[in-house]
Amino acid sequence: MRQSLDAIFKPKSVAVIGASTRKGSIGRETLHNILLAEFNGKVFPVNPKASVIHSIKAYSTIRDVPDAVDLAIVIVPKDAVKGVVVQCGEKGVKGLVVISAGFSEVGTDGKQRELEVLRVVQEHGMRLIGPNCFGVVNTDPKVSLNATFGKTFPRRGRIGFITQSGAMGEAIMNIARELGLGFSIVASIGNKADISSNDMLEYFKDDPDTDIILMYLENFGNPRNFTVIAREVSRHKPIVAVKSGRTKLGAKAASSHTGALAGLDVGVDALFEQTGVMRVDTIEELFDVAMALSTQPVPRSNRVVVVTNAGGPGILATDALINNGMEMPPLSAPTITELRKFIPAEASFSNPLDMIAGAGGEEFKKTLDIVKNDDRYDSIVPIFVPPVTIDQLEVARNIHQALAEVEKTVLVCFMGAGLSSEGMDYLRENGIPVYIFPEAIAKTLATTYRHQMRVSRPRGKFKTFTVDSAKAQAIVDSALALGKEAIVGEEALAILAAYGIRTMPYTYAENVDVAVTAARKIGYPVVMKVNTPPVLHKTEVGGVMVDLRIDEDIRSAFETLHKRIIAAGEKGEFSVAMQQLISGGIETVMGMTTDPSFGPLIMFGLGGVYVEVMKDVAFRINPLTDRGAREIVRSLRSYPLLNGFRGAPPVNQDVLEETLLRLSQLVEEFSCFYEIDINPFIASPDEKLCAAVDARFIIRSS
Amino acid sequence: MRQSLDAIFKPKSVAVIGASTRKGSIGRETLHNILLAEFNGKVFPVNPKASVIHSIKAYSTIRDVPDAVDLAIVIVPKDAVKGVVVQCGEKGVKGLVVISAGFSEVGTDGKQRELEVLRVVQEHGMRLIGPNCFGVVNTDPKVSLNATFGKTFPRRGRIGFITQSGAMGEAIMNIARELGLGFSIVASIGNKADISSNDMLEYFKDDPDTDIILMYLENFGNPRNFTVIAREVSRHKPIVAVKSGRTKLGAKAASSHTGALAGLDVGVDALFEQTGVMRVDTIEELFDVAMALSTQPVPRSNRVVVVTNAGGPGILATDALINNGMEMPPLSAPTITELRKFIPAEASFSNPLDMIAGAGGEEFKKTLDIVKNDDRYDSIVPIFVPPVTIDQLEVARNIHQALAEVEKTVLVCFMGAGLSSEGMDYLRENGIPVYIFPEAIAKTLATTYRHQMRVSRPRGKFKTFTVDSAKAQAIVDSALALGKEAIVGEEALAILAAYGIRTMPYTYAENVDVAVTAARKIGYPVVMKVNTPPVLHKTEVGGVMVDLRIDEDIRSAFETLHKRIIAAGEKGEFSVAMQQLISGGIETVMGMTTDPSFGPLIMFGLGGVYVEVMKDVAFRINPLTDRGAREIVRSLRSYPLLNGFRGAPPVNQDVLEETLLRLSQLVEEFSCFYEIDINPFIASPDEKLCAAVDARFIIRSS
Repeated sequence: MRQSLDAIFKPKSVAVIGASTRKGSIGRETLHNILLAEFNGKVFPVNPKASVIHSIKAYSTIRDVPDAVDLAIVIVPKDAVKGVVVQCGEKGVKGLVVISAGFSEVGTDGKQRELEVLRVVQEHGMRLIGPNCFGVVNTDPKVSLNATFGKTFPRRGRIGFITQSGAMGEAIMNIARELGLGFSIVASIGNKADISSNDMLEYFKDDPDTDIILMYLENFGNPRNFTVIAREVSRHKPIVAVKSGRTKLGAKAASSHTGALAGLDVGVDALFEQTGVMRVDTIEELFDVAMALSTQPVPRSNRVVVVTNAGGPGILATDALINNGMEMPPLSAPTITELRKFIPAEASFSNPLDMIAGAGGEEFKKTLDIVKNDDRYDSIVPIFVPPVTIDQLEVARNIHQALAEVEKTVLVCFMGAGLSSEGMDYLRENGIPVYIFPEAIAKTLATTYRHQMRVSRPRGKFKTFTVDSAKAQAIVDSALALGKEAIVGEEALAILAAYGIRTMPYTYAENVDVAVTAARKIGYPVVMKVNTPPVLHKTEVGGVMVDLRIDEDIRSAFETLHKRIIAAGEKGEFSVAMQQLISGGIETVMGMTTDPSFGPLIMFGLGGVYVEVMKDVAFRINPLTDRGAREIVRSLRSYPLLNGFRGAPPVNQDVLEETLLRLSQLVEEFSCFYEIDINPFIASPDEKLCAAVDARFIIRSS
Repeated sequence: MRQSLDAIFKPKSVAVIGASTRKGSIGRETLHNILLAEFNGKVFPVNPKASVIHSIKAYSTIRDVPDAVDLAIVIVPKDAVKGVVVQCGEKGVKGLVVISAGFSEVGTDGKQRELEVLRVVQEHGMRLIGPNCFGVVNTDPKVSLNATFGKTFPRRGRIGFITQSGAMGEAIMNIARELGLGFSIVASIGNKADISSNDMLEYFKDDPDTDIILMYLENFGNPRNFTVIAREVSRHKPIVAVKSGRTKLGAKAASSHTGALAGLDVGVDALFEQTGVMRVDTIEELFDVAMALSTQPVPRSNRVVVVTNAGGPGILATDALINNGMEMPPLSAPTITELRKFIPAEASFSNPLDMIAGAGGEEFKKTLDIVKNDDRYDSIVPIFVPPVTIDQLEVARNIHQALAEVEKTVLVCFMGAGLSSEGMDYLRENGIPVYIFPEAIAKTLATTYRHQMRVSRPRGKFKTFTVDSAKAQAIVDSALALGKEAIVGEEALAILAAYGIRTMPYTYAENVDVAVTAARKIGYPVVMKVNTPPVLHKTEVGGVMVDLRIDEDIRSAFETLHKRIIAAGEKGEFSVAMQQLISGGIETVMGMTTDPSFGPLIMFGLGGVYVEVMKDVAFRINPLTDRGAREIVRSLRSYPLLNGFRGAPPVNQDVLEETLLRLSQLVEEFSCFYEIDINPFIASPDEKLCAAVDARFIIRSS
């Protein structure tokens, strides 16, 4: 049976296994931290050479420890780790935190060492944090464990913190301490040999002491698991993440539109968007959001009132709030009537409400007491710039008095009071977040509000269509058997058709007369493209002629294309492919690309210029839900074109969404596709005229 | 003769004119500040009721002061200000700082009071800062003037600071003090009755103690003057500005595309872009940039090397630098060879260069000594995350030692060392800017680098074309005489033609047979639009038919348009207008809209969807230079479409630029145009096919 993570985070007894090297003894700092934080259990130093460390009896090996040991902290040279872990297993230790470095982070040898350690851990049913980590912290007074080598024991609080980088972990704990932010548990997960960020998310989900989860991540071990777990956890507890490190798609990616468009970080953004994780861009924003979430409710609406004693910062706050999509409705008439009773007439009775410079604690209190009952607002932002004549602590006390009990989101700005002033300290100690700059408040409100909107949406459903996967399989098998790297043209469309995606049939012609007969059969107007010899970018050599209306057009187009192909130096027998021209349709592009971390991403955009020049495309991680399909369509900047621009009838969006879902199913069921382009897929008001016109699959044989 | 501003910023003698009110005496704080800062001259308190203030003999009126007075600080009730100013004038005072509030900021009465004061000031040739301001500061030890009512006397430094908001001024001075930033002169310009931000810019231009200018602005008094002055000053001294307060265009703006597209703040952005002012979004960025500029050179290129002891922050820095358009070339081979001599093999010899956690002062010193000579880089970013075992002050000393003399841009990150640690203090005191977060460094480098690129470009030239302005005037006069609010169709095109802008002639037809004859004469293919009755948005009612190729097309189009007009309920005689269809052309939109602060803005974008859905348009403040015209065209996201997309020939951009310059001249010479739309202007590879197809002028009679 595998141990629960409680063995690591709530141990009754801890062994600190250090070593003595030429450079001195290692592991002393961690032992010192454990003692300093007054760990609520037994601590056993283990060291082959020392008999006493920090005045405590030390044992040569873990085997010599007389009591049972829940958790062992391992800080020995990399080559000694495996032996120590074996001993721990034999001793019956339940959890391990391996701080030692020199494992998978240093290359192949290290990776091998790590796998060997992991095997031992698993054989004994132990759980492992690390290796190459900073340690773990539990601030619960019943535990009080600081098993790290840092110098900060964080304040008690309700934030669970997962960090992949030890250095970032320490930096973040230091800054958090200065900002008055408290943690429940900190886990530096290092190389994630056993316990991953996903495990930690699950642990925090059920941890009654954790309300908010912060993550610093550099990569995702298993994005698919992350999706499932984070989607579930984020409905109950907000997850805020900084993800650094960019996704570089391999060289192969550039072989298709979809691949080249899936730029840096598209996968991460899609993942967070789909799972309800709040992604912030910087560590600073991580703190800004964490401060708000740790004491304030998430804004119920985007309506904010700003109360200030200084015009300038009020204007800055307004700019930032509006730019971030928040709203600032004017004060209601009853509120203004109340305010006029004591605020001088020169004040500005709008939003922002500028009480002017003389306003002190009393004015803030009276004003906020009135404004907090104005149900136009769900967030209240008091801004105070301390003039010399006003006691800022008094202002802080009054703001707290007025707003302590209010069930709205309160974020305070003290601008120019100092980076940490007594007024700011007072508010923080009393559970009211306070910021130096109004822009940080605006961004924080917007981030948390948008998050709230996202997680409160009903969940999407996965759909499975009845398809002819055998037929698609047969086409793929045949292509693989021939050693092809791509499936194009008719065969590509046939795969789509097998999955119930509408396609526009092709008719081929190798001479002018056949072409004319075929065009009449298709019905004018038609489109003609070069079929053979195969040309990669047809439009660049002028290999496509559209809107051919009469027989003569066909004849002339056939000749023109033939000449162009010869002029372009293309060799081989010449033939053309013709399709019906759908008028009134809008060209869209659908596709799939494979992200090295996230696997298949589904892409959607408007055709041609929109995709290639304006880069107006959206990605989601596969598989799509019905809601995901709807969102990917609507998230485009160019969406208005699909939805009835300038009096045109809207295109049939149900068909677009269903097509994306069918594409998603195709991608799910065939792992051999590396990239797919459906370009164009014609969107039309008339369902029957919606169709894939051309497609290309890049396949890989593995 | 008007006094120079030296009377205000470098006075030899100062009178502080206060008053005693029921609430106590006012002006005491300012006097106290002057004494505390040890003003290098004589101070005379003036107060009608007190004979001694702060142990100094006070005079009843300025007339009683025995010596000459250069500068008077006026802090009396608003209604007493004018009388005091009259006395100052009679006394021969040269400069005034009126701190008292209650003037134009409170409405019509106040505005009147302000004008009266200004008249007195001008009559006596005095200069005035304020009213409604926070005061002025000069840190020059030869002056040492702190004539404010705040509590911060800033450090000595080389930043000139102009603030429109007193409260923001105080907040900014407080924060600057904590960050170690020093000022030369601070001017809180309040209502700007006399001395404006433009005057201050000119003063700072010639001030040998000022190298950098920071501005906090809420509006521009005279944007056109600002343009001229800021353009000149920014070539010599960097100007960094926070501009708050958004530009709301009047309701009338929505009557044209151009007007509706000129969103919030377009004018401000255009103004700063055109004048080489660095606009930052937040006060925080203002400090970030100011810290860098006050001790470091502006980056000569966008190539940066990051040297770190921690992987995580290195990755964050890389993300932020790349996202902000900077580059991080890999280390050169010789550099790597040198580094390998002392950096452990597990380190990452790339960029960011991660020396791994054990790295202390010595490693930073040795590494930076090598890297600083790698001429691939013009900026160096050392990042340090303090582990418990490393002395951060030692690291700071070594970074300083290595980089003190280097002629590259050095910005240091100490992450998690505390908001203000001894290591950070050491670096700041030694002229090396240090930041808590790597993202701030990335943004600062990018902002300053882009600024450098902008100001080092050759200046554009204004062009004047020979035009037939009399003809344009005649058309306008006739429209005004008829009480028209708009000039459209043929007349609108005629105005453009008078200014040498190519236009596409219209041919009109009131029946089918005339239409067919006309179409043959124009030459197929043609475009047909409804001419009368006048329809505002023709495309919405289907009032335009394109690509008509044969007589039968003309007949059918005429019928169709007629039916649609009847169906749309439009009344009046039916006629159509026809033009040649230019194939291979790209529709662009040019225009002008009037911004309430900045006056006419010239607009350019790609036609139809690009403008209306993608909002891909660019604005510049009129008049345009040839360089401005070139930039407005190239700044579009959709510019690649004009420049030969997918093998198409590029359109003739000289014609586009010249047309914009001719439009600019038209706008300069006619103040009666409120808005202009040229939509579409066809851009084509062939100069002869470039032409304005339709245009509309909104005119105002004033």
